[in-house]
Amino acid sequence: MKVIEKIRENQNKEAVFSFEFFPPKTEDGVENLFERMERMVAHGPTFCDITWGAGGSTADLTLEIANRMQNMVCVETMMHLTCTNMPVEKIDHALSTIKSNGLQNVLALRGDPPHGQDKFVQIQDGFACALDLVKHIRATYGDYFGITVAGYPEAHPDAIGSDGVATPEAYEKDLAYLKSKARSFLPISLFDVHHHAKIPAEITAALEPIKDNDEAVRAYGIHLGTEVCKKILAHGIRTLHLYTLNMEKSALAILTNLGLIEESKIPRSLPWRRPANVFRVKEDVRPIFWANRPKSYISRTIGWDQYPHGRWGDSRNPSYGALADYQFMRPRSRDKKLTEEWATPLKIVEDIHEKFKKLCLGKLKSSPWSELDGLQLETKIINEQLGKINTKGFLTINSQPAVNGEKSDSPSVGWGGPGGYVYQKAYLEFFCSKEKLEALVEKCKGFPSVTYVAVDREGAWRSNIEQTAVNAVTWGVFPAKEIIQPTVVDPSSFVVWKDEAFEIWSRGWARLYPEGDPSRKLLEEVCDFGFVYVHNILVIFDDVSRDVCGPLLQVQTSYFLVSLVDNDYVQGDIFAVFADL
Amino acid sequence: MKVIEKIRENQNKEAVFSFEFFPPKTEDGVENLFERMERMVAHGPTFCDITWGAGGSTADLTLEIANRMQNMVCVETMMHLTCTNMPVEKIDHALSTIKSNGLQNVLALRGDPPHGQDKFVQIQDGFACALDLVKHIRATYGDYFGITVAGYPEAHPDAIGSDGVATPEAYEKDLAYLKSKARSFLPISLFDVHHHAKIPAEITAALEPIKDNDEAVRAYGIHLGTEVCKKILAHGIRTLHLYTLNMEKSALAILTNLGLIEESKIPRSLPWRRPANVFRVKEDVRPIFWANRPKSYISRTIGWDQYPHGRWGDSRNPSYGALADYQFMRPRSRDKKLTEEWATPLKIVEDIHEKFKKLCLGKLKSSPWSELDGLQLETKIINEQLGKINTKGFLTINSQPAVNGEKSDSPSVGWGGPGGYVYQKAYLEFFCSKEKLEALVEKCKGFPSVTYVAVDREGAWRSNIEQTAVNAVTWGVFPAKEIIQPTVVDPSSFVVWKDEAFEIWSRGWARLYPEGDPSRKLLEEVCDFGFVYVHNILVIFDDVSRDVCGPLLQVQTSYFLVSLVDNDYVQGDIFAVFADL
Repeated sequence: MKVIEKIRENQNKEAVFSFEFFPPKTEDGVENLFERMERMVAHGPTFCDITWGAGGSTADLTLEIANRMQNMVCVETMMHLTCTNMPVEKIDHALSTIKSNGLQNVLALRGDPPHGQDKFVQIQDGFACALDLVKHIRATYGDYFGITVAGYPEAHPDAIGSDGVATPEAYEKDLAYLKSKARSFLPISLFDVHHHAKIPAEITAALEPIKDNDEAVRAYGIHLGTEVCKKILAHGIRTLHLYTLNMEKSALAILTNLGLIEESKIPRSLPWRRPANVFRVKEDVRPIFWANRPKSYISRTIGWDQYPHGRWGDSRNPSYGALADYQFMRPRSRDKKLTEEWATPLKIVEDIHEKFKKLCLGKLKSSPWSELDGLQLETKIINEQLGKINTKGFLTINSQPAVNGEKSDSPSVGWGGPGGYVYQKAYLEFFCSKEKLEALVEKCKGFPSVTYVAVDREGAWRSNIEQTAVNAVTWGVFPAKEIIQPTVVDPSSFVVWKDEAFEIWSRGWARLYPEGDPSRKLLEEVCDFGFVYVHNILVIFDDVSRDVCGPLLQVQTSYFLVSLVDNDYVQGDIFAVFADL
Repeated sequence: MKVIEKIRENQNKEAVFSFEFFPPKTEDGVENLFERMERMVAHGPTFCDITWGAGGSTADLTLEIANRMQNMVCVETMMHLTCTNMPVEKIDHALSTIKSNGLQNVLALRGDPPHGQDKFVQIQDGFACALDLVKHIRATYGDYFGITVAGYPEAHPDAIGSDGVATPEAYEKDLAYLKSKARSFLPISLFDVHHHAKIPAEITAALEPIKDNDEAVRAYGIHLGTEVCKKILAHGIRTLHLYTLNMEKSALAILTNLGLIEESKIPRSLPWRRPANVFRVKEDVRPIFWANRPKSYISRTIGWDQYPHGRWGDSRNPSYGALADYQFMRPRSRDKKLTEEWATPLKIVEDIHEKFKKLCLGKLKSSPWSELDGLQLETKIINEQLGKINTKGFLTINSQPAVNGEKSDSPSVGWGGPGGYVYQKAYLEFFCSKEKLEALVEKCKGFPSVTYVAVDREGAWRSNIEQTAVNAVTWGVFPAKEIIQPTVVDPSSFVVWKDEAFEIWSRGWARLYPEGDPSRKLLEEVCDFGFVYVHNILVIFDDVSRDVCGPLLQVQTSYFLVSLVDNDYVQGDIFAVFADL
């Protein structure tokens, strides 16, 4: 969506904000940026900018970051593009790349002179100024792109004399030029303080005594930023654009001071983050299975022509992309966390149960089955009960409590803004042994509102519903809208998901240990067979009697992945099914 | 849908039933049949048959009745088709007609000899037997049609000798023929007692003493039918087909005796009767405006290629068929009822209000704005409140109470079968003067959960929502299913509906009076201007001050049609908006 449209959408809001980032120099820097960005984007900026490296030096990296921002972080992204050292075919390569990646916003700039030069020089096959670039984009791409241009409150640096101010003539000329750039797009009242602007003397003076105290400088910066923003807002400008310099804390502190964000109130337009990609903006329904792995879901569905809209049933039998290495790669910092928390010695199956239990109780902050940080807020409603069933060997990797008409702005389970009501059917997804499953299936006969699908690694199937039965497990009712049902349990998709879920045992968890480590071996074999040989002594997991042993015995007791729904969200109790199991 | 598929769908039911009708001889007879059929079909027969007149004598009428049954009564219809006097092009005309009308079921018969003849004679270009007909249908129409054939428990009449029984050889031969007919389709275990079957002596004996007492004969018939059906069911046959001879009471009495139907429990798979037409079986969402005029809705949408499925928004801006005379035609008996109840003298506007009030209170059984009999059950929940607002000049023609998660088998508001929960947003649709509307609009500002659209005859528009905002006002949540939202308020469709709603003032109500009748004139002018001239004295309706008068004054105070939703179905009170108005 074009930034201008997003700003118009927000017309009734008191004030909105956006962030600007630049491409970091190292790989670690990039990963750190994306971690910060995840947390910052959660607060709902209208859009985010990524700058174009001076003279196109970071072109490929900028394009890659822009793609990840738009498609994985799911924030409306505006990429900067400058004329410096950019022949027209490079310009077009950049534009066609972001177009095919579903971006719609470009900030068209002339750009600074290349490093070591004083003056901007037009290259052969290149453009002389931002106006040329804007005209080229419009001529080549019609109205596909939303184009933004830059303006200077004190006139362009080139128009400013050695005395630090522009002559009235130079200022007028600069303003006329800004207008002609603006004529190529719809003007927006967006205020951003550019780093080329002049620094007032009182700021320099205030910084002088504290310049060696980083903490004090930062605090002053937050104070100053807050005051400047207050003045801007007081003048009726309601769209703030923050140059974050890739720093998270200052930007969020200013917005918190202004009352525009609250740490405890993360806005959710859907239970999962709505995509920004122009090709999938209408997407409003997903299988619940990837709830904790949205990036994996997006990458497996990136090739879809049509994203399901409203009803999943209309797009039955969707063809998911194959499992790729991508799905098991993690940023280094995340990998470190996982190794700390999950790569501890495992001797018996109860050690594995213990891990899952700790996760449910909030004692672990990471999970191999999740790309997200910690537990979702709503999980806390049921974590004690989850802990109990994990101890029994039902190893949960996904869950949600029943919700019967909570207000849609509830901090724990709400989404979609105020004025509506949200609902959920209680959901549990877990691994368990075949024996546990049999006991559960038997038990379910006494719970007519409970439906389940279960599948083992090889595809053996147990279920009490049709494979075509799609179950909406999260839905919301809002004023003057159709019912929104963003999350479904779809048996056909479950068959695709189970490959990924089983694979995480080895590639997501076991590989955190060094090769040959007994814990690693244990995990790999649990996943395959549900039992394991250690030093030629058969240690049988779980329910299989411990006196059935012998190194050559093949016991068919593989794990099942089970998806369980209590359809009675009004009076049901999904955990009652596990009593006495 | 093919009858065989419908029977398979019902496999888990204890027993199901179907009805057979024949084409009546008079126009009144046809209308009477359809009135009975409406009531009978409400009990949920699996399908209904319409017979083919002897020798094709009623071919056109049968085709027309079959079309109305399938598309207006919305019952899966099986049309009989015989070979008697039917050259192949007539056969094909009949088949292609029902195919284009969305029927999928044919009962293929050889047929009786033509009237006055003893033996069946094959005509030129015609078929000799049902087997030929079955083969022709398969060859010409592939597997589009579900084909049913006839069998005789005692062998075909032609195989029965003068002693009243078939020889073993003739019986075997007849059975082999039945098998070869059956090989052309999938056999179904459907039991029906054909009128060519032999009447046992004990029945003749039982009828002899009561043959002159119609009531006693009917009671015996019901008793006998019940006992025969009990025996059939006791043998494990679960599909009963009843020859109704177009009589309603005996058929329903037998089914009631068997416990297969209950007068107070009308099954509803959706809030409106689900279409039978093969082209619109997936339809599961409709605008609420036609709730009381389903036949008008069907006829206005009959040309649609795709009926909205699940979400209305996907089919935005549907093109409705034009208003046709059809929409204002009524069966004679209905017209009589309306005239009795609605064509009483009207002198002042309060007389009009009184009519609407009486309707809401259940004191009138008919309404010009409804094709249905009396009030919907749920209206009784709010009829006192409806009465009050009608007295105030808000003339309601459609309404539903708020429902917050009632069980889906609730007799008053339930639909979709047991195990689910159903919901409704409170809805009111009414005519009112412009002044009343202005007051209402002002009042609504204090009720943030209330949304409205209002339009006058010429299209003047008042609303507090976007014209593209589709509001689901009835929805249901069922085990292992997506959310079903069968009824929506769609502003674009409302603009289409208002023409029909306004037109009913004159063509549905005013024309019940003789031409020139003052009441008729009053009604026609109310609808056009909201005021009326009587004997050259201007009588102003409603809120316009009574001293503004004079025969030439054009007062712009036309009525508005208003659609009002309280989106807060949990805590809202839609009638609170009308307090002090």
